[in-house]
Amino acid sequence: MVLREDRYFSAEPTQRDLARSLYTLVNKLPLICPHGHVEPHILAADYYEWGTPVDVLIIPDHYIFRMLYSQGIALEALGLAPLHGGAVETDHRKIWQTVCDHWYLFRGTPSDLWMRDELHDIFDCDQQLNSANAQTIYDELTAKLRDPAFQPRRLFERFNIEVLATTDQATSTLADHQALTNSGWSGRVVPTLRPDKVVNITHDFAAEVEALSAVARVDIVDYQSYIAALEQRRHFFKEQGATATDHFAQSAYTERLSERAADGIFQRALKGQTSPEDVRRFTGHMLTEFARMSIDDGLVMQLHIGSLRDHNPDLLQRFGRDMGADIPTTSEFTHNLKPLLDLYGRDSALTLILFNLDETTYGRELAPLAGHYPALRVGPPWWFYDSVLGMRRYFAAIIETAGIYNTAGFNDDTRAYPSIPVRHDLWRRVSADWLAGLVVEGRVEEEDACEMVVDLAYGLAKKTYHLDR
Amino acid sequence: MVLREDRYFSAEPTQRDLARSLYTLVNKLPLICPHGHVEPHILAADYYEWGTPVDVLIIPDHYIFRMLYSQGIALEALGLAPLHGGAVETDHRKIWQTVCDHWYLFRGTPSDLWMRDELHDIFDCDQQLNSANAQTIYDELTAKLRDPAFQPRRLFERFNIEVLATTDQATSTLADHQALTNSGWSGRVVPTLRPDKVVNITHDFAAEVEALSAVARVDIVDYQSYIAALEQRRHFFKEQGATATDHFAQSAYTERLSERAADGIFQRALKGQTSPEDVRRFTGHMLTEFARMSIDDGLVMQLHIGSLRDHNPDLLQRFGRDMGADIPTTSEFTHNLKPLLDLYGRDSALTLILFNLDETTYGRELAPLAGHYPALRVGPPWWFYDSVLGMRRYFAAIIETAGIYNTAGFNDDTRAYPSIPVRHDLWRRVSADWLAGLVVEGRVEEEDACEMVVDLAYGLAKKTYHLDR
Amino acid sequence: MVLREDRYFSAEPTQRDLARSLYTLVNKLPLICPHGHVEPHILAADYYEWGTPVDVLIIPDHYIFRMLYSQGIALEALGLAPLHGGAVETDHRKIWQTVCDHWYLFRGTPSDLWMRDELHDIFDCDQQLNSANAQTIYDELTAKLRDPAFQPRRLFERFNIEVLATTDQATSTLADHQALTNSGWSGRVVPTLRPDKVVNITHDFAAEVEALSAVARVDIVDYQSYIAALEQRRHFFKEQGATATDHFAQSAYTERLSERAADGIFQRALKGQTSPEDVRRFTGHMLTEFARMSIDDGLVMQLHIGSLRDHNPDLLQRFGRDMGADIPTTSEFTHNLKPLLDLYGRDSALTLILFNLDETTYGRELAPLAGHYPALRVGPPWWFYDSVLGMRRYFAAIIETAGIYNTAGFNDDTRAYPSIPVRHDLWRRVSADWLAGLVVEGRVEEEDACEMVVDLAYGLAKKTYHLDR
Repeated sequence: MVLREDRYFSAEPTQRDLARSLYTLVNKLPLICPHGHVEPHILAADYYEWGTPVDVLIIPDHYIFRMLYSQGIALEALGLAPLHGGAVETDHRKIWQTVCDHWYLFRGTPSDLWMRDELHDIFDCDQQLNSANAQTIYDELTAKLRDPAFQPRRLFERFNIEVLATTDQATSTLADHQALTNSGWSGRVVPTLRPDKVVNITHDFAAEVEALSAVARVDIVDYQSYIAALEQRRHFFKEQGATATDHFAQSAYTERLSERAADGIFQRALKGQTSPEDVRRFTGHMLTEFARMSIDDGLVMQLHIGSLRDHNPDLLQRFGRDMGADIPTTSEFTHNLKPLLDLYGRDSALTLILFNLDETTYGRELAPLAGHYPALRVGPPWWFYDSVLGMRRYFAAIIETAGIYNTAGFNDDTRAYPSIPVRHDLWRRVSADWLAGLVVEGRVEEEDACEMVVDLAYGLAKKTYHLDR
Repeated sequence: MVLREDRYFSAEPTQRDLARSLYTLVNKLPLICPHGHVEPHILAADYYEWGTPVDVLIIPDHYIFRMLYSQGIALEALGLAPLHGGAVETDHRKIWQTVCDHWYLFRGTPSDLWMRDELHDIFDCDQQLNSANAQTIYDELTAKLRDPAFQPRRLFERFNIEVLATTDQATSTLADHQALTNSGWSGRVVPTLRPDKVVNITHDFAAEVEALSAVARVDIVDYQSYIAALEQRRHFFKEQGATATDHFAQSAYTERLSERAADGIFQRALKGQTSPEDVRRFTGHMLTEFARMSIDDGLVMQLHIGSLRDHNPDLLQRFGRDMGADIPTTSEFTHNLKPLLDLYGRDSALTLILFNLDETTYGRELAPLAGHYPALRVGPPWWFYDSVLGMRRYFAAIIETAGIYNTAGFNDDTRAYPSIPVRHDLWRRVSADWLAGLVVEGRVEEEDACEMVVDLAYGLAKKTYHLDR
Repeated sequence: MVLREDRYFSAEPTQRDLARSLYTLVNKLPLICPHGHVEPHILAADYYEWGTPVDVLIIPDHYIFRMLYSQGIALEALGLAPLHGGAVETDHRKIWQTVCDHWYLFRGTPSDLWMRDELHDIFDCDQQLNSANAQTIYDELTAKLRDPAFQPRRLFERFNIEVLATTDQATSTLADHQALTNSGWSGRVVPTLRPDKVVNITHDFAAEVEALSAVARVDIVDYQSYIAALEQRRHFFKEQGATATDHFAQSAYTERLSERAADGIFQRALKGQTSPEDVRRFTGHMLTEFARMSIDDGLVMQLHIGSLRDHNPDLLQRFGRDMGADIPTTSEFTHNLKPLLDLYGRDSALTLILFNLDETTYGRELAPLAGHYPALRVGPPWWFYDSVLGMRRYFAAIIETAGIYNTAGFNDDTRAYPSIPVRHDLWRRVSADWLAGLVVEGRVEEEDACEMVVDLAYGLAKKTYHLDR
């Protein structure tokens, strides 16, 4: 029905033709990957052992195992091991068969598109997963994973990645990044500081602060020295190439506490004696504090909010955190972010990129905010909305108010390293098609669309994340 | 402009051609009607007297009289009689003329499409209602309603209904269903237990409990015996063919009370001494309790939330409940449903189908929840969203995250028996067109779409509601 | 790519052809402008000095300067003068160059479309703004603004404006309107009463009440005389041709206070001693009171809610109110408006037109409310949603439930007088294209669409605002 080269373009012939033409301007551009969860040790190792196709394509992918779980397939049957022991399927051929037997569940989802495109583009395998071909494909993938051309650094070059940012704890020594630098390999892999654990006063705060103290070589005794240690980490990360930090919070609530009030909560937190109100205020205060630090050191600040993580207590207890049970909630920025913006919103020295999972905020709050405050940019569609329709709704809701130049371009946010190119490709196709629609409806000039498609595919991410500096 | 056979398909020729082709795979499939409000006595009677076209097409249809009321036409002028007496138009020819004089108000609404399709497909009348043809059409409809071929059981066969579920109070003896069974007629008509009245502690609770006690033959003296009586009703309904229950609540709030706390509220409720907090907690507790019972007896649980019913106090006082003045509110599932899901969400023995009137929850909450929890399914678009665009937005917002196999297919939810086929037809057309769009954009393979269109039209409803058991 | 005459129409050829055909039915109809912010003195003056292109096209347009500010351009650099002195760019040629250098920021926004269409249709200038042509265009515009044909009354005739409503403070003497009437010119320019300042008890209430007292010639000593003064203003505005009032509130909260409670708050407000709860209740009460007055005197009531105005405290302090820093919030109507609707919602003598900036309310609350209550109409998409996609989403979310006859047609809401025709033109094009889509999908008959396009472009606004009386 549809030529493979026209996938994700509109069916309308004029728009499709133009989409194809715009897409050819960007499909070979280098990949800018300013936010994601690829583990740096994959690239630091001289030789990386991928494991089986299940290790690479199924076990790390919560999009996939959450869907299978929703239809009654136990995580153990997919090779995910319970934390505290118990039966788990170890026969990866059998797991692969189970996945393929149920692959029909993914019809119409981005997982299906990513898998199909990844098999085709990366693994040279031009078939749709099903029960019949499961074992044949397993064999083909296994062979590929053993091919030296599949070693991560070779893929980095083949994927044409210009820069790849990882996400790293504040207490990380960035040993893998240093090893990579020392290896003499030319690929640019930069860390990103994610200080959530050392800011979350509800979970092992004293232990986290102790670890922070040790790695930063700062004797943390109060709020002031705590801030000094965080500033040390920012400085260290920046020296290692970081251009950004990343923050998760339940909501976008911000405020500015007095130093005395902040120290009061800090001291209670060390003793494990905080109230929910303490948690809310300290989290909101620290976001404001990180914005201040960003103005000082120039690191771009990313804020992800709006997900109730680990919603399923059975999975949390048996498998731990981040098992696909994130459930979005309503988000609010207009009031919540105002205290931070009152202080720093008008300052172009701050770049604060906002992500969330409540699409109603796109047109109502994010676009009006980013279309006004110099410090704000809207991040690309996240998690469940990193999809053809998620992207289309994002463009539709945001651009009329904020324009594209108040957005942050694309980032793949993936933990699945071999899926990086197909995720960028999907964005580039949807962008090209969206722009083609604007042109054929007389809403943008064709020559402008030619510039915009490059900005969306490449320029905006590079500039917004200071990767051009 | 548009051929009748292509209605509700996209204008784009390639998509339209494929939509037509997919539609032909399902347009003759039997109708699965697992949720609706057809009164069983229509079918139980040996001869059913339909009354006038106004009795059949106007008076029972709140979509129609709410729109006419919004433009200043009194309900009395449409033949709806005030509860406590007063003038009401009894000349149905005159009412029909009033409706036709104002039919232009429905341009662009599903009521117009249903009426047009129903007149054409069911009544062989190929005209659009207007002032000029009102009386002629009235005559034609009157004649049809007197035709023996229009008797409800004949229509049931003509409509190719495989199964029709009614909605019945917990205190119902299901006499009509028993009469139907005893009649020897082969049509499958099953009851659905709707226990709202015997759970709603704000309205005549003591009287409802007394009625429940009598019909269940359980001496209800406390919370424990109250639960026993409800379980008896579930057992009885299941014996009569029921496969599901249906529950309405203002919100999706759930919790699990201790038996002692539940009994405390129950006892206060019998005395009419409950607080709003009691109401909220008891309602939320009973939803959790019904989920537990569903796991025990296998009845599918439906939950409809999010409407502020009887918003117009003048109509409520003069005409009673359910006069078209339902106004939706924001809904919330992520937090509200968590207590129930903590207990039962991972259990595939429970099927909990969620309906609501806040479309923002589709992508943000319902799809992520149903795409994770084995117990959850998303019900089709309800009330104001049972429409071409309501369906398109439903597919667009839900399927990328949850897939189609975590949805419950379609149900017509109608109280207008002769409108059943056209409502399914509209769903089947919109489904086919949506799938055609996925294929022509390279997002789904055509052969998969051929399976999906059948699942959406027939298979999913049958399976989800256990009508295949 | 796209012929200029086909702009904003769908790319699909059949739909486009029909859209063009429907558009020709309305593109020459007179303009009904029932709500906007054109200053009446522009038309009252015998000769109006426009000033420079920057005075006309940039300085009054918050869409434009908010976007430029979001990218770090100071308002002072755009010619906006701080309230309390300080440097401001006065070289308008330089400002114009700055704007043109950054015009690429507006790609994909309605500002770009309005500017392009206004330059083309009104100023005979067929170029897109850019750095290279900035000064040439500046010269062309300057010459046009000095042309006698550009005098406001000549433009009024050229634009084919049938009626233009201004927005005026309750304390206004309407001197400009009286001057216009006395001038003998035939153009219909009517005032609209906007009593927000004399109802807002948080800002200089005593002074506002004193001014109201003076202009109304009512000695305001208590709530009762305050109401009498407001009623006097309504009477006076109506005598001067007003058919409507306009109200802004943070939320749609309404209630009905006893006269004694209202007077209590009123007296505290005069002394500047109100609580936030007083403010909320008094605002909600006054909305209800204004609805009562509307029933008495027949003035149509407009309600705009849902924007957090003056979000940026730095701009508020330095430049004052309304500097483009309005940020929308979630809105709620179902509960908030109920007290008012309980009293007056069923009364066709009231016309209450609702506007807001939370699109989620369109389908969930506004359409169900307007599709039921005789008193309610939905206003056209406002502020950030006065755009191609804003209009499409509006039609998509509202019409299936409320029909078009419960909407208020279009109003341009502009303070940029020369932009009036292009704003109506955009609405007429998008309406025609939307209707064409309904026809080609078999959802509306073509002959009905021919009537609907005229109603949307002309009839509904005229009727809803009582401009046909």
